[in-house]
Amino acid sequence: MLRTHTCGELNKNDIGKEITLCGWVGKRRDHGKLIFIDIRDRYGITQIVFIPKESGQAHVLAQDLRNEFVIKIKGRVNERPQGNVNARIPTGEIEVIVLDLEVLNSSLTPQFEIEEALDIAEETRLKYRYLDLRRKKAADNIIARHTLYRIIRAFLDKFDFVEFETPILTKSTPEGARDYLVPSRLNPGEFYALPQSPQLFKQIFMVSGMDRYYQIAKCFRDEDLRADRQPEFTQLDMEMSFITEEDIYGIMEQLMQAVFREMKEVEIAIPFPRITYAEAQSRYSTDKPDLRKEFNTDFAFAWIVDFPMFKFNGEEERWESEHHPFTAPAEENINTLEENPEKAKSRSYDLVLNGMELGSGSIRIHNQELQSRIFKIIGIDPEQAEKRFGFLLEAFRFGAPPHGGFAFGIDRLLTIITGESSIREVIAFPKTSSGLCPLTGAPSDVDEKQLKELGIQLRKRQ
Amino acid sequence: MLRTHTCGELNKNDIGKEITLCGWVGKRRDHGKLIFIDIRDRYGITQIVFIPKESGQAHVLAQDLRNEFVIKIKGRVNERPQGNVNARIPTGEIEVIVLDLEVLNSSLTPQFEIEEALDIAEETRLKYRYLDLRRKKAADNIIARHTLYRIIRAFLDKFDFVEFETPILTKSTPEGARDYLVPSRLNPGEFYALPQSPQLFKQIFMVSGMDRYYQIAKCFRDEDLRADRQPEFTQLDMEMSFITEEDIYGIMEQLMQAVFREMKEVEIAIPFPRITYAEAQSRYSTDKPDLRKEFNTDFAFAWIVDFPMFKFNGEEERWESEHHPFTAPAEENINTLEENPEKAKSRSYDLVLNGMELGSGSIRIHNQELQSRIFKIIGIDPEQAEKRFGFLLEAFRFGAPPHGGFAFGIDRLLTIITGESSIREVIAFPKTSSGLCPLTGAPSDVDEKQLKELGIQLRKRQ
Repeated sequence: MLRTHTCGELNKNDIGKEITLCGWVGKRRDHGKLIFIDIRDRYGITQIVFIPKESGQAHVLAQDLRNEFVIKIKGRVNERPQGNVNARIPTGEIEVIVLDLEVLNSSLTPQFEIEEALDIAEETRLKYRYLDLRRKKAADNIIARHTLYRIIRAFLDKFDFVEFETPILTKSTPEGARDYLVPSRLNPGEFYALPQSPQLFKQIFMVSGMDRYYQIAKCFRDEDLRADRQPEFTQLDMEMSFITEEDIYGIMEQLMQAVFREMKEVEIAIPFPRITYAEAQSRYSTDKPDLRKEFNTDFAFAWIVDFPMFKFNGEEERWESEHHPFTAPAEENINTLEENPEKAKSRSYDLVLNGMELGSGSIRIHNQELQSRIFKIIGIDPEQAEKRFGFLLEAFRFGAPPHGGFAFGIDRLLTIITGESSIREVIAFPKTSSGLCPLTGAPSDVDEKQLKELGIQLRKRQ
Repeated sequence: MLRTHTCGELNKNDIGKEITLCGWVGKRRDHGKLIFIDIRDRYGITQIVFIPKESGQAHVLAQDLRNEFVIKIKGRVNERPQGNVNARIPTGEIEVIVLDLEVLNSSLTPQFEIEEALDIAEETRLKYRYLDLRRKKAADNIIARHTLYRIIRAFLDKFDFVEFETPILTKSTPEGARDYLVPSRLNPGEFYALPQSPQLFKQIFMVSGMDRYYQIAKCFRDEDLRADRQPEFTQLDMEMSFITEEDIYGIMEQLMQAVFREMKEVEIAIPFPRITYAEAQSRYSTDKPDLRKEFNTDFAFAWIVDFPMFKFNGEEERWESEHHPFTAPAEENINTLEENPEKAKSRSYDLVLNGMELGSGSIRIHNQELQSRIFKIIGIDPEQAEKRFGFLLEAFRFGAPPHGGFAFGIDRLLTIITGESSIREVIAFPKTSSGLCPLTGAPSDVDEKQLKELGIQLRKRQ
C-alpha cells in the first residue's frame, strides 16, 4: 500500500505516530504561512497542515496544490488545539503535520464543486459521474446497494436458499414487454433475447429439485422509458418448492424487517396488512395504496392479494393473464375458469411500499393439464405455447413440485431507503430516458463489418 | 410449508415423531407386502415404508408410484432394524412408516436414470437439465458456485471492498474480442455492446475515489467457441487504489487460501511462487506451466510476472499491447518505450493454477501523457482513442489515483474445485460449442415486426 492509514481512521490514539495518507485535495485554508488542507478518500477526511519550519520543501510544493489533485503525504499525527476540534468527523480531534508531499496526479478544475451540495444538471453529473461519485451523498447511495445485498444474502443463506446464475443470452421470456435482441453470429438470422426476468429458469430450478433459489438478477425490458424505468434493472428473484403463500409472506416480511433494521434502524411491524385487490380499488382507487398516513409510519408495507386471474383486452377482444400465464388460480375457481373467467381469482400477490409496487409473485401452476386450460382461455394455441414455453411445459411432465416465488425491484427499494426520488440515484451508471449513457456515449454506431458478420443490416429510414 | 422436515434431516432423535415429507420417488423395493421407497429432495434421502396394516389406503396408492413422481407423505419415524442401518447417509438409522400419501404430481419415465451414474450424451443431459440436476453430482457442482461466492464476498468485505454493479447494455470495451451487439430501438442505427469485461468501469470507479471495488461480473465475448469457452462467463473482477503489485498478490493469495481451505479442506502454501515470463518460456515452453509434479501438490498456483509490454503483430506490421492498452510499463522502461518497445516489460501478472490461466491483472496507467505515448506506440491515433475510450481518458484528467486490479474466471476455478473437466459442468444452463442452449432452444428466429422496430433487417445469404 502507498499509505499506512485511510483518511477516515486516525484519531487521538494515533497522536505522535508517523503515518502516510493518500487522497484527494479538498477544502483549503491559508492562515498566514500555515496551509490547511482537507485530504479526502472514501473513508473520510483528515486535516493536514503544512508548516514552513516542519514541512520544508513540502510547504513550497503545497502552494501549487489545487482541488482534486491526488497526493501522498507523510506526516506526524498531532492533537488539534482545543478550539479547533471538529466533533462532526471521526478524525476531528487530530491533524497531520506534513513532513513530505508527493503529487501523484494533478487535476483540471472539476466541472462542479465536489464538496458543495449544489444543484447541478443531472446530465452533467452523469457525464462526469467519476466526479459526482466523489460527493459523499452520491457515493453513499451506491454503497448502500452493497449493504443491501449483504443483508439479503446473509438472510436467505440462513433459510437454505441457494444462489444460482441464469443466462443473459437466452430466449424470449413471458413477461410481455419488448425484448432486447442480440444477433447470433454463429447462427445467422437467429437472435438471443436478454431476459425480462429469470421466470422460466427459476421454475426449471424447482422442477430440478433445487427447492429454494434466489438470485440478484439483471433484467432487461425494451420499453419506452419513464422516470422510474431503466433499460436494465436489478431484482431479487426467488422461488421455493412445497410452500404456500404464507411461506412467501413470512420470508419476505422477515427479510424486509432485517433490511430496515440494519439500514434505517427502524423496526417494521410484521405481519404486513393484507388488502384484497377489490378492497384496494374501492377504498383507495388503486392497487398500490400509500398507507403511510393511515398507519402513521415512514415505511408502510402491505400485501395486495386476491387479484383477478384474467383481465379482458377490449382491443383484441380476448382474456389475458393479469399476472403471467404460469400463475395458479385460486382453488375454489379451478372448476369454473372457462365459464366465469371474470370471477376467477389468482394466487398472486403484490408487495406495496409507500404507494409503490415493490414486487410481485405467485404460486405457480405445476399441473400440465391446468396449464393447458389457462393457455386456451387466454388464446395461446398449443403450437404457440410450444414455441414460446415448450421446454417448461415439457419439464412439467417430469414431476414438477408445487412451487411459488417472488421478485422485487432492488433499485426501487434502494431509492426509498436512501430517500432519493429517482432510481437513477442508486445506479452507478444509469441511462437517460432516451436510453443513453451520458458517460460512455452508448449506444453508438458500429462498423459495417460487424453488422455483416452478424448477418444483419440497417433498414433505410422511412 | 407442505412438509415438516426435509428428506435429509430426520435421525434417531426424531424417533416416534409424526412428520410430513415431500419429495421425489427414487429407488423402490417390494418385500412381500412391504414397499420400501427412497424419497428424495435437495437435502437428502429418507427411506419410507408402506405397511398394509399401518398405511391403509396409502399402501394401495403406493402400488402405482413410479420413479420421479412427486409425493407428500405423513408418517411416523421408526428406528431401523439393526441389520438395515445405512451408515452412509445421515438418515440411515431411521425409516418412516407411511400413514398417509398424497401424489402431488406424476412423471413420465425420465430420459435417463437419476440415481445411476450412467454415461449419458451431454446434449441429452442439457436438454433435460431439470432431470440432470436431480443427480447429486450435477446439483453439487451448481451449488458449489453459491459456496464459492459466499466465501469470496465474506473475504472481500473484510478487506473493505465494495461490490458495485456495472451496466450490461454498454459501449464496446478494449479487450479486443468481438462484441455482442444489441440494437437500440430508441436510437435506430445505434447499438449497445455487451461488456467483454467491466474494465473501463472499474477504472472509472477508482477515479471516483471508490478505493476498492469488486463484482462477480458477467462478461460476454463473441468468439468461436472451444471446449473451455462460453458466450457468457463469470469473473471475479476487482480493482484497488493506492497499491502496488504486492497488495494484489497478497489479497489474491489469501483469497485462494480461504477458498481451498473451505471448499477442499486443503491448506495452500503462500506466497505463491513467482516466475518471470521469460523463465516460464525457457523452462516450460509456456506461460501457463503446470507445476503440480514439481511442487508435489494437487493445486499448484504460480504468478507469471514481467510480461513483455508489447508484442509485434507481423501481419499488420505494428506493435500491440500484450495485456491491454491501460497496462502500466515497468518503471525502468518508461523512458525508452519508443526506442526499445521489444525490451519493455509491463506491470501485468497472470495467476496460473494447474497449467491453466486462472486470471490476470495489472497496475494501470493513471497518467494521461504516458497513456497517449502507449496509444501512439500501438498505433491508436488520438481520434480513434477518443472514440473508443474518450470518457476514460477524460476522467484521467481529473485526478486519477494510482490503481491496479485483477480478474479471474469463476467458471474455471469451479471446474478445478469440483474436479470436472469442462466448465459446462459448473454452469446451470451452458451453451454448446455452436452457442445453442439445448434446453430453451436459444437463439431463435424473431418476428419481422421486432426487427422493423429495431431498424434492422436480415442480410440475404450470399
